[in-house]
Amino acid sequence: MEQNQTIKPYVIGLDLGGTNSVFGIVDARGDIKAMTAIKTVGFTSAEDFVAASVQALQPIIEEVGGIETIKAMGIGAPNGNYYKGTIEYAPNLPWAHDIVVPLADMFSRSLGIPVALTNDANAAAIGEMTYGVARGMKDFIMLTLGTGVGSGIVTGGKLLYGCNGFAGELGHVVVRRDNGRTCGCGRKGCLETYCSATGVARTARELLATDQRPSILRGLDPEKITSLDVSIAAEKGDELAQEIYQFTGHLLGEACANFAAFSAPEAFIFFGGMTKAGDLIMNPIKESYQQHVQGLFKDAQFLVSGLDGSNAAVLGASAVGWEI
Amino acid sequence: MEQNQTIKPYVIGLDLGGTNSVFGIVDARGDIKAMTAIKTVGFTSAEDFVAASVQALQPIIEEVGGIETIKAMGIGAPNGNYYKGTIEYAPNLPWAHDIVVPLADMFSRSLGIPVALTNDANAAAIGEMTYGVARGMKDFIMLTLGTGVGSGIVTGGKLLYGCNGFAGELGHVVVRRDNGRTCGCGRKGCLETYCSATGVARTARELLATDQRPSILRGLDPEKITSLDVSIAAEKGDELAQEIYQFTGHLLGEACANFAAFSAPEAFIFFGGMTKAGDLIMNPIKESYQQHVQGLFKDAQFLVSGLDGSNAAVLGASAVGWEI
Repeated sequence: MEQNQTIKPYVIGLDLGGTNSVFGIVDARGDIKAMTAIKTVGFTSAEDFVAASVQALQPIIEEVGGIETIKAMGIGAPNGNYYKGTIEYAPNLPWAHDIVVPLADMFSRSLGIPVALTNDANAAAIGEMTYGVARGMKDFIMLTLGTGVGSGIVTGGKLLYGCNGFAGELGHVVVRRDNGRTCGCGRKGCLETYCSATGVARTARELLATDQRPSILRGLDPEKITSLDVSIAAEKGDELAQEIYQFTGHLLGEACANFAAFSAPEAFIFFGGMTKAGDLIMNPIKESYQQHVQGLFKDAQFLVSGLDGSNAAVLGASAVGWEI
Repeated sequence: MEQNQTIKPYVIGLDLGGTNSVFGIVDARGDIKAMTAIKTVGFTSAEDFVAASVQALQPIIEEVGGIETIKAMGIGAPNGNYYKGTIEYAPNLPWAHDIVVPLADMFSRSLGIPVALTNDANAAAIGEMTYGVARGMKDFIMLTLGTGVGSGIVTGGKLLYGCNGFAGELGHVVVRRDNGRTCGCGRKGCLETYCSATGVARTARELLATDQRPSILRGLDPEKITSLDVSIAAEKGDELAQEIYQFTGHLLGEACANFAAFSAPEAFIFFGGMTKAGDLIMNPIKESYQQHVQGLFKDAQFLVSGLDGSNAAVLGASAVGWEI
């Protein structure tokens, strides 16, 4: 295959998760041309992790025509610092949990291409802007509703990083001042304690303990209830389960109304497992937003991510590569 | 005086207030070379206002060497829309209260120079970045504590305008969900209802009614108490008055801790009459911020505007001109 040396049609995306590290080689349209993966854990040092990654990448790089066809690499990683290209004190990564790892530099030296790194929620926002429902948008807020609540904020077409690279921690905006739930960050009342998947399960346990109505959820071990259980029950018409989503959506709508006053976004885009609940969660969010927002910001759209769920994180990471 | 035709050393700043419109011709260091003013009201149309403005400007323009020495004009105005250069439905301007006035275009045509316009809090933020304590900063939040609470947010060295030009309405972030005070915007619990000068007076009236401690403030007509009265009493050691500032600062600190999670600013800069209370207000803000903020954002500075109070608004407006 002849290759035009001046055009580099691909980027590598690395979705670095707590369990697996998934690599994809992606073109400008968001088509994944080749994929591979290794375990994230099981390495004693970052050097070993990078060496194993490069070894796994070699065959798929050859498959698309060699390293000359690759413009750059983007990495989405927990505790990723965009400014420094580092992973910092990532609690779930054995080879990075008590140190600062200059991961972007390490990959760049091994592969001989530019590498940029950011946290997973920021990668999702850039992915949405590059390939998803935010194409052409310059001002939007991405909220990732998973085990926690992450966010990526785009203003004027650029991701907001702030003075230290850590802007956009909207999961840790305090939304309940009195008797707020205790958060993993050590504070109380953070959005994440209510509106993450674990927050929804927590709401379920609270409501089952204080509300006497019958519910499908009463057949489950309260300590093992998940947001998926709540979603399934709600779809079956379970009143209590529907109320849990009403409550969750109400808080998200209130929070988005405050976020709007900050950056006047054209859209809020939701990503992650909880969005599978569809209208059950999206309708209460929209209603609550309209009820709480200042008139100037009433026109904001509420959208669900346009990226293919299973590949979204790799696509997001790859999009960080196009930004270099 | 010989003038180098390629260098235009000045900009015009217009601080368009509800009562007076103050014009200044300013150099790049923030020195005001000449000033003039007209009444803002008393005109039946925007055309008349612009004609009177241009007439008042002529002598001071000549004074600095003619229109050839002037690069641009910046306007800070209530309800100013930066994207469109318009004043929109400004409730306190008789010649703009029910229409959209293309004020930037009108001045540009009359004077033959580029003209940009933004709202007063944004102008203050740009002024601070150009001439004040935010010189060299790329990420900070300006909060103007006056009759209301205004804000200008700078991220990556640029003012944040959002999708419609109205980003940065932090005075209307809801900070109290239950029994929040009614706001002029029609909603409840907005920051402005607690932390503006009128909010402080409202707190004074509430506390005097519910707290039995003696206070200098009891000698005043409750309906006429101002934030200045509270400040004077607090400086004299009045316990109740000091508690009012504690309460106000506490709410501001909480709010800033949430704002930090959004844009990770290097500093919060306070401007407006209420900052004259000095440590009485600034210390409670800082204490409350440290108590409520996530660890990532603990290093933010808390500063008072570095612009000369009486000329700050004109300087801010002029700085908008340098941005063109």
